[in-house]
This record gives sequence, C-alpha cells and structure tokens, in this order.
Amino acid sequence: MNGAESLYRTAVAAGIEVCFANPGTTEMPLVGMLDRVPGMRAVLGLFEGVCTGAADGYARMAEKPALTLLHLGPGFANGIANLHNARRARSAVVNLIGDHATWHLAADAPLTSDIESLARPVSHWVRRNRHAAELATDMADALAAAGGAGGRVATLIIPHDTQYDAAHGPVAPRPLPAAAVDTAAVERAAAALRGSGPAVVLLGGGALQAHGLRAAARIAAATGARLFAETFPARFDRGAGLPAADRLPYFPEQVLEALAPFRTIVLAGAREPVAFFGYAGMPSRLVTAQQEVVAFSVPDAHRPPGTEPCTATMLEALADALGAAPEGGAVVHSQRPDAPTGLLEPGSVAAAIAAVQPERAIIVEEAATTGIAYAAASAGAPPHSLLCLTGGAIGQGPPCATGAAIACPDRPVINFQADGSAMYTWQALWTQARESLNVTTVVCANRAYRILMFELMRAGIVEPGPKAMSLTSLSSPTIDWVLLGRGLGVPSVRVETAETLVTELRRALADPGPHLIEMVL
Amino acid sequence: MNGAESLYRTAVAAGIEVCFANPGTTEMPLVGMLDRVPGMRAVLGLFEGVCTGAADGYARMAEKPALTLLHLGPGFANGIANLHNARRARSAVVNLIGDHATWHLAADAPLTSDIESLARPVSHWVRRNRHAAELATDMADALAAAGGAGGRVATLIIPHDTQYDAAHGPVAPRPLPAAAVDTAAVERAAAALRGSGPAVVLLGGGALQAHGLRAAARIAAATGARLFAETFPARFDRGAGLPAADRLPYFPEQVLEALAPFRTIVLAGAREPVAFFGYAGMPSRLVTAQQEVVAFSVPDAHRPPGTEPCTATMLEALADALGAAPEGGAVVHSQRPDAPTGLLEPGSVAAAIAAVQPERAIIVEEAATTGIAYAAASAGAPPHSLLCLTGGAIGQGPPCATGAAIACPDRPVINFQADGSAMYTWQALWTQARESLNVTTVVCANRAYRILMFELMRAGIVEPGPKAMSLTSLSSPTIDWVLLGRGLGVPSVRVETAETLVTELRRALADPGPHLIEMVL
Repeated sequence: MNGAESLYRTAVAAGIEVCFANPGTTEMPLVGMLDRVPGMRAVLGLFEGVCTGAADGYARMAEKPALTLLHLGPGFANGIANLHNARRARSAVVNLIGDHATWHLAADAPLTSDIESLARPVSHWVRRNRHAAELATDMADALAAAGGAGGRVATLIIPHDTQYDAAHGPVAPRPLPAAAVDTAAVERAAAALRGSGPAVVLLGGGALQAHGLRAAARIAAATGARLFAETFPARFDRGAGLPAADRLPYFPEQVLEALAPFRTIVLAGAREPVAFFGYAGMPSRLVTAQQEVVAFSVPDAHRPPGTEPCTATMLEALADALGAAPEGGAVVHSQRPDAPTGLLEPGSVAAAIAAVQPERAIIVEEAATTGIAYAAASAGAPPHSLLCLTGGAIGQGPPCATGAAIACPDRPVINFQADGSAMYTWQALWTQARESLNVTTVVCANRAYRILMFELMRAGIVEPGPKAMSLTSLSSPTIDWVLLGRGLGVPSVRVETAETLVTELRRALADPGPHLIEMVL
Repeated sequence: MNGAESLYRTAVAAGIEVCFANPGTTEMPLVGMLDRVPGMRAVLGLFEGVCTGAADGYARMAEKPALTLLHLGPGFANGIANLHNARRARSAVVNLIGDHATWHLAADAPLTSDIESLARPVSHWVRRNRHAAELATDMADALAAAGGAGGRVATLIIPHDTQYDAAHGPVAPRPLPAAAVDTAAVERAAAALRGSGPAVVLLGGGALQAHGLRAAARIAAATGARLFAETFPARFDRGAGLPAADRLPYFPEQVLEALAPFRTIVLAGAREPVAFFGYAGMPSRLVTAQQEVVAFSVPDAHRPPGTEPCTATMLEALADALGAAPEGGAVVHSQRPDAPTGLLEPGSVAAAIAAVQPERAIIVEEAATTGIAYAAASAGAPPHSLLCLTGGAIGQGPPCATGAAIACPDRPVINFQADGSAMYTWQALWTQARESLNVTTVVCANRAYRILMFELMRAGIVEPGPKAMSLTSLSSPTIDWVLLGRGLGVPSVRVETAETLVTELRRALADPGPHLIEMVL
C-alpha cells in the first residue's frame, strides 16, 4: 500500500465520499489510486475555484467534509476566494494539495511557491506531510480538524514522492469530541432574556436549521424576544411550517435601525454584527453602548475543533431554562406570491422564483442587488434551504450550487445568480452538465456591477466620470449568457418578461439535469 | 488633493499609463479619481486573473510596469496564479489592493483576510500604506521596486480611508540605478569560453531580445559556442534576420540529452536548468557534475531592484572581450512552411500559424502539447515576439495576449492556446472585445488535459481506470468554444481542416478587433 492508498482508505473509513478535483502532474499518484479504492467519487472542475466552492456547498448540505484535490501553490491560489467563503461559512473542507517531491523542492522549479503562506489565511489547520508512512495519520488529523457541521478548512500539502512511497495502511477516524452545553452561558442568557428590556436573539450557524429554529421559537414565545438571522447565513432552513427569522439587512445604517428598539442582543451561533464595509461617519460595531450583548454561543476560530458548543442544543437548554412550552412557537404559514406578470425587475423576479420553487428546494442566492426582494417573497414558500455568500468573495454561486446538488441529489437546486459574480466561476456549469445535476441557474443580467453604482454614490462620487462608470458596467459588449451556458453543455434560454420566466422556470425544474435562464433586467 | 489623486499623479509622472482593474467598494476613491487625473487608462477585466495576466503581458512588451487595481484579499487571490507567472517572467507589475479602512480592520468584517500572507509568495515587495500623506511616497517606492525590464512584482495595500484622506501631492519618480557591467563575470566567462571544451550559452530574460541575441551570436561566431534559450522565455524575439537559439526542451531526459555534448554552460539571463517536475530516478539539476556552470548573469530575486546587470549589455562586453567581430554572427534566413492541407494535427496547426503570421506578430503560446511543433515551424517566419508560460500556472494565455495588445496596438497578437488552460481565464475575451484589441485566439480543442495523459504514463499508471481517465478528459460534455467566444462578443469560427484554418487565420488577421478560431483536433 502506498501513501495515496492509505490516505483514501483513511478518508473513506471516516465517511468521506467526494473529492472535487483539478489535479496536475504532482498529484498523479493520488489520481491513479482513485480507481483502486472503492467509495471515493472524483468530480472534475475546470477551474480550482469551482472545486473549492463546490466543496463549500457540499459541506453546507452534507454536514461532513468534502475533499478538494489541487495542484501546487498556483492551483490552490485559484481556489482561495471560495475557501474564504467556506471559512466564513464554517464549512468543513479538507484541501489536498500536491507539491513537488521532497527532494525536488530545493530546485525552485517554475511551479514552486510558498504554499503555506497562501494556505494560512483561509485555513484553520495547515500541515505538510513529511513521509508516506504518516500520510494516513495526517489525513485523519485533517478530517478531525475540519470537523463536521460548524466546521473548518484544513489544508494538507502532500509531496509527490510521499504519495507513491510505501505506507503502512489506513488510520481509524478520530472521534470528534461531543459538544458540551455551556450551562453558565445558558444561565446568563436566561437571566438577560428574563430582564425587562426588549431583546433580540441573533441566529447563525446551526441555529438556522430546523432543530435550532424551533428551539429559538420556543424562546421567543416564552420571552417576547425577536428572532433575527445573520445577514449572510451559510445555510438557512426556512419557509412554511418553520419559525420565522428576518435576516439582518446589509448596509450599516439599516442594521442600526433594525436593532435600535432592542436593549439586549443574544448571540446564538452568530458573531456580533459589524459593518460589511467601513463608511466614513459610520461605526464598525453595529451594537451601541446602550445595548447589552450576551455571547451565548459565538463562533470562535480559536477553539479546538469539535469543542465548540452545538448552538441548537444550547438553544433547547435555554428554552427549557426559561420554562418555555415544549412545543410551539410561531411558524410561518404557507403563502406564495402569485405568478408575476409584466416587466422583469427585482420584485417580479423574486416573486417568480418564490412562486414556483419546489418543496425542499436548495436556493443558492448570489443575486446581489437583484436578490434583496427574494427574502420577503419566499418567506412562506415550501420549506427550503437558503445558501448565501458568506465571505463576500464573489463567484460563489455556481460552484456552491454544484456541490449542494452533489450532496443532495434528491433536492432541486436553484442558483439565483448575479451576472458580474457569475463571470468569476462560470466553468461550474460544465461540471453540472457532466454530472447531470439538477441545478437551474437563473442569471440576473442587469449588465452592471450594480452594487458599485450605489457604492460610488455612498463614497460621495455623485457624478462619476466615464472611466469610473466604465468600471461598473458589463455592457459593451453585452454578455450572452445563453451562448455561455450552451457552450458548456447546459440547455439555456433567455426571458424578457415575468410570464416567460415563470414558464421557463417550471420547464427547467421539471426536466432532469442542469438548465440556465438568462433574465434580461 | 487626496491620497488617491497623489498616487495617480505620482504614477503618471513616472510614465505609467495603464491600470488593469477589477475594483470593489474598498477602491471607490481610487475609481472616482480616475476621471480627475489625465493620463491613466483603466481597463476592466471581469476576473482578477485577467487583470494580473494582462499586466504581465503588458509589462513583457512595454518594458515598464502596468498597474492592477484589485479588491481586498479574495480579489487579489484570484490574481495570484498569473502573478506567479509574472514573477517567473520577471515582469514589472504593481498591484494596488484596496483594503478596509484602517479603523474598520479590527472588526474582522466578512471580506477581511491576511492580505500580506497572500501577497508575499508572488511579490518581491509588499507594503501596507499607513497614511494618505505617505501614499505618493509608497507609490514611488512600489514603482522603483518593480523596476522596468527584468522587473519585479510589487504589491501596495491601500486602506479605504487613506485613499480619500488629504495628502500633500505627488512625488517625483525615483531614478533607477544604472545597471553596471560585472567585469569580473565577463572575464570569467571569456576564460571559460576560450577553453577547449564545447560550450553552451543559455539565454534568458533580456538576452532573448534583438540586442542581446546579436551579442550572443557574435560570441557564438567567435568561440563556436552553441546558443540555447531557456525552456519558457517571457519574451523571445525571433524569426528571419535574427540569430537562432533553440529552446531547451521540457522533459528532464530531453534536457540532459540536449546538454550532454557540452562541457561548459554559461548562464546569460537564465537560471541553471532544473526539471520542471521531479520524476523518480531523474535528477532535479539538469547539469551534471562533469559540466562547468559559469554564472555570467543570473536572475536573482534577492538583489535590490535596479542593481541587476543588463544581460544584453554584458553579452556585448563579453563579445568584445573575446575579440568577436563587431558585426555578424549567423542569423536565420527567411523561410516559412507552405500553407498546410489536410488533417488538423499539431504539425499542421504549427505550420498554418507559421505560414500566415504577419510581420512583427506577438505570439502568446500556451498551447501545451499541441504547441511543441511550433518552435521549429516558425523559426524562419518574419520577426516576431514569442511569449511563453513562464511559471506553469495555466490560464496565462488569453490575459497575457490582452495586455500585450494594449502595450503594442500596432502589432497583431496571436494567442495559440490550449483548451484546458483557456477555461481558466476565458473572461479575457470580453476585455479584448470591449477594447477592440487585435488578438486572434486559436484554441486547440483536443478536449483533454493531454499532458496529464503523458504524466499518468510517466507515473507508471499505464492502464489508468475510468476515474483517473475522467480527470484528464474535457469531453462529456464537449466545450463549444465558438459559443463561448461569441457569448463574450468575439467573432468566432470552428475549423476542422488545415485549409480552413489557414483561410480563417488570414481573414481574422486582416480584420480589426479580436477573433477566435476553434481548431478541432
């Protein structure tokens, strides 16, 4: 057994099933071994950002790590932006990066670079394998470091020679420590919520899945606390029959306004809200000195893996401590917008998706300015999972949708997608076609970095000149998304009215495999 | 005057004219100021790898720095792969990266990351601007660090607030120190070349432009030394009327064979040859213990900028020291292949391009396995500049061609391009269309990572299984490059015979603006 085989056998024994791969020469022993170890599926992405974004989407839905297989420093670098999103999403991802043979590194061959320096900003755990005999142990450690739900990015650098050198065998998976309930935190939060002032519970991470939401709804029913979701959740299970939680808005003045009525802010799986960008005259912290922040369960990158409390379980303990009724709390009633007609604009687009999205859909929303109306429109739609752009690194949508579809082949995926962002990782469509994934990509062709037009104004540039304007415009030439979709093997259509959008969405969702709909806005 | 204005005025005063940009919110003051400072052209790329690859191509041809304008850590990360190539090409590039406002960094907002850690592996110089008043100075230092020909990558991180805060004014360009001739190195090389054994002069960097090549040819004529070019030159001016130098081959056993007849190897602007990848049983160093290596002029990343000797000037001094005739040395005679007919295969493709390429063409060659035959086919073509993939990070071709066309609007650019690599940075076609650049992209659609099929065999995987094979294949689905080109506004055609390739190449080269030709191989 060589190092590569010991690595795969260790991963498969730990329940790992999928590797999103774009390998090169330095990974050939790992590539060749894929056919020798049953149980590992290799999914090719034609750009590394597709692989890392797909691993993020997979981890969000499968709640276990996906592997990526990447080629030295420059190949890994192409995947950094979506690993940044995965890190912010607390997705469990293990990157396997092939490097030059140990004895060849000193030659400083053309592809040599400082992989560790590139990996650290997006990885909670980075290790370079030293010997084939340690490759199984390193893999088990990487998987333990990545954890499962509420996970981390772990990066293992593997020299070419340790992949093919002889190894002992696989290593048993490390048991993840059981997450304990922090009873002191429960008591503090219960005391704060029993206080007189109006309170918010800000939900994030695992608190935004059904289990956590139901516990939060019990707390809200018992205390009158308001539930908010963090602005960009990694995964938010919502819709009819589930408790409601509005997402915090995006711009800092909007967040301040939303939180102004409340005296107490309980953080349950979410970090204290901060401005997405700093604006002159606006604070970074969006909690005021008059507000009390209770750090009930806060994501903390510095905790050892597995020792972070399970926010959903803690919310249950908190509901019990508050004497909340064991069942109940308000849930959202089923209510969909009517199928819209007329002009395509952000409101009708949101209504069209909400009107037709199937039961248990996964909505990957990277729709930027066009997406704002969707949250309200879809609040009472059938239960669905909403996956957002967690780290602000655009180009997350198509890969994330790809990975989510591989994690959940029985659930339809809708990628509600801004055009400027789609250009970053368009290659994901090819993987969707190759793997026959049920992903419907709905591209918002407003032909601009529309958000930047707002941001120019916010920066005081009220009459931008032609050079500034040209940097916000995707016209001249107009991108033809139908040709780009068909070019990668995905059936694609263009719609210019809300009626045709509804018709084409229904058609796409009824037909297996990927589809693309370009919406001209 | 604010910081942004002082930065641009400093850059324009230093002769900088172009900025390849993909900005976001944190760069808005720099974006807004573009219209207020005459002389700076902003070119939008729809992905940061397009911007950095274009800056590399621009710097190779303009021999002065291009700027990039990028968005925080994740935006910069998308540009790392082509900066890796730029670093290996010794291209002068200055990256301007907007970051959060100084007072907002501590909030760890979603887009926050360790930009310095990402930047260092591809940058010879990294600085974070501290105050608006120092932005002009930092810009002048960045330009001095980047240098000109034989340059470096310099990265300047600029917080949002120091862009808009008040500054004093621009700073005069720093004079670059004059490159001195290392007379001791000249004497050592002259002595070695006067020795009895057969010798090679290995040319790289500036030695591969007309001036350096002519000096090298005088040396060859006086001593009988053989001239080789490094395997992947950043810029190699070659063709009829210029001295010949064969490029060293790619695989290590081929390099060993090519160098075996020689006792002495003089490095003139090139590093000592090493294997591109380490293979079991093959050395890293491709020079044997029996061979004498003379470090006449060797690129050295650790030298202060501007202090590196000019290899072309040093070669002239060496020719004089050897008493070479002031003129002369063999040059290549004009000779083109006949326009090929019949099947499209690597040989006929190379012949077709060499048969039609216009005078002073710039050939950006990222054709991987299909490109091997081109070197010989084009040896006697009209004088042209050949730009190669210097760092092995694929996706260099389309952006590099874009930047070269902006640097040299009067020269036609042919991007001879592998399909697997083209998928990485295909967005460059849009910039070519927007800027009406005279770039003809010739895509080698062999529908495979063909090189990896060879590498599987070299790794001893002689009968790869279906999973391994699927990771080398770009079929299923077939990529339609004609649709992808047209989707980004570039007139595109498909050819299946050598005759139609010749016809379409001639048509594309005669018609202004970008074109694409998909060659089905």
